Amino acid sequence: MTPTAQLSSLGITLPPAPPKGGIYKPVVVVGSLVYLSGHGPYLGDGGMIRGRVGEDLDLAEGHAAARQTGLAMLATLQQELGSLDRIKRVVKLLGMVNSTAEFADHPKVINGCSELFAQVWGDDCGIGARSAVGMGSLPGQIAVEIEGIFELNA
Amino acid sequence: MTPTAQLSSLGITLPPAPPKGGIYKPVVVVGSLVYLSGHGPYLGDGGMIRGRVGEDLDLAEGHAAARQTGLAMLATLQQELGSLDRIKRVVKLLGMVNSTAEFADHPKVINGCSELFAQVWGDDCGIGARSAVGMGSLPGQIAVEIEGIFELNA
Amino acid sequence: MTPTAQLSSLGITLPPAPPKGGIYKPVVVVGSLVYLSGHGPYLGDGGMIRGRVGEDLDLAEGHAAARQTGLAMLATLQQELGSLDRIKRVVKLLGMVNSTAEFADHPKVINGCSELFAQVWGDDCGIGARSAVGMGSLPGQIAVEIEGIFELNA
Repeated sequence: MTPTAQLSSLGITLPPAPPKGGIYKPVVVVGSLVYLSGHGPYLGDGGMIRGRVGEDLDLAEGHAAARQTGLAMLATLQQELGSLDRIKRVVKLLGMVNSTAEFADHPKVINGCSELFAQVWGDDCGIGARSAVGMGSLPGQIAVEIEGIFELNA
Repeated sequence: MTPTAQLSSLGITLPPAPPKGGIYKPVVVVGSLVYLSGHGPYLGDGGMIRGRVGEDLDLAEGHAAARQTGLAMLATLQQELGSLDRIKRVVKLLGMVNSTAEFADHPKVINGCSELFAQVWGDDCGIGARSAVGMGSLPGQIAVEIEGIFELNA
Repeated sequence: MTPTAQLSSLGITLPPAPPKGGIYKPVVVVGSLVYLSGHGPYLGDGGMIRGRVGEDLDLAEGHAAARQTGLAMLATLQQELGSLDRIKRVVKLLGMVNSTAEFADHPKVINGCSELFAQVWGDDCGIGARSAVGMGSLPGQIAVEIEGIFELNA
């Protein structure tokens, strides 16, 4: 199944692509690689999931924020590329968690995004290299920010 | 106008490229991509803009630190590549702000660098993908560190 | 000397590759580039070097943690690629230090990894572009996390 058909079969309707929050392009394509700017957990109505994981949000809420961030990333990719079906696979994600100094479960938070991508592109192409780390702060105190590199179909 | 001509028309004289602060290369070229190491707001006289944005520096000072970081990046690219005119466009920036846990305006800080690059390469080629995030700390307590990927002309 | 011969002449036996700690691939290859997921200072017996540099660990201990992280990266590359000799050079490292807000010597910490890679691939090919920065927190409170991009031999 294509990513688009997969989304449909999962009953997922993507939110609108988030508005830009600064001087950057949402997506830059170089050769077969797609560089996707850092995204946050955009809710589609203009709101974002905000707060520090380990303090304002628990692990489950952080995981949900990472999944929502993944949906926003998909929305931007679809808007900028015309279709998600142009993307062959996930190459790399940098998952950044707005977390307390004591928080230790960053990978479990970012899994919220990785699980979504594995559903959309499958367990091979949907899973790429990754780092999951804790930030001192994030723009607008969003809970999660994720940037990515993807590969286009030939 | 070429980037070099653009710099000249803006009346900008680049500072000397900053000295290396560790075991790395300032620039690595692979195919048409240029990987530029993380740079700080080098002042050219050996000094750096230091401090935490939201505490020691306000938003305007953070923005100025990001612009100064952009100048240092340009200086390194010019020194290592021979000329900025070899660069076609900005592919991606990772903008890291030394900020308090409560700071929320990281994109506005990093815009200081992005606005400079948009002046040098124009609004299309000068603006790439980007993430702007808050770090727990930065080397020598500099205010901003930015790394980048650029594309060479064919 | 090849990287494998170099390791041998240095008397270094690599630890086993660390187990995965989330939903990602240790390595993704795209064209001639190898994207290596973020690694921590894995000790080979299941343990990791944990703690905050500047508080729980001093500079020398942080440096040792970065070297251990480098060994774990080499172990993963060897396991996933079959041989380190397939790698031509280091392109870029992102070195992330779990450090206090006052810590300032991140480059000296990450040098622990860069010195190891310079021994394995030599001073030219073993040294790439790099950023060395301080995180708010890291998974499992490990002391260091490093991700990398490498180039394969043609």
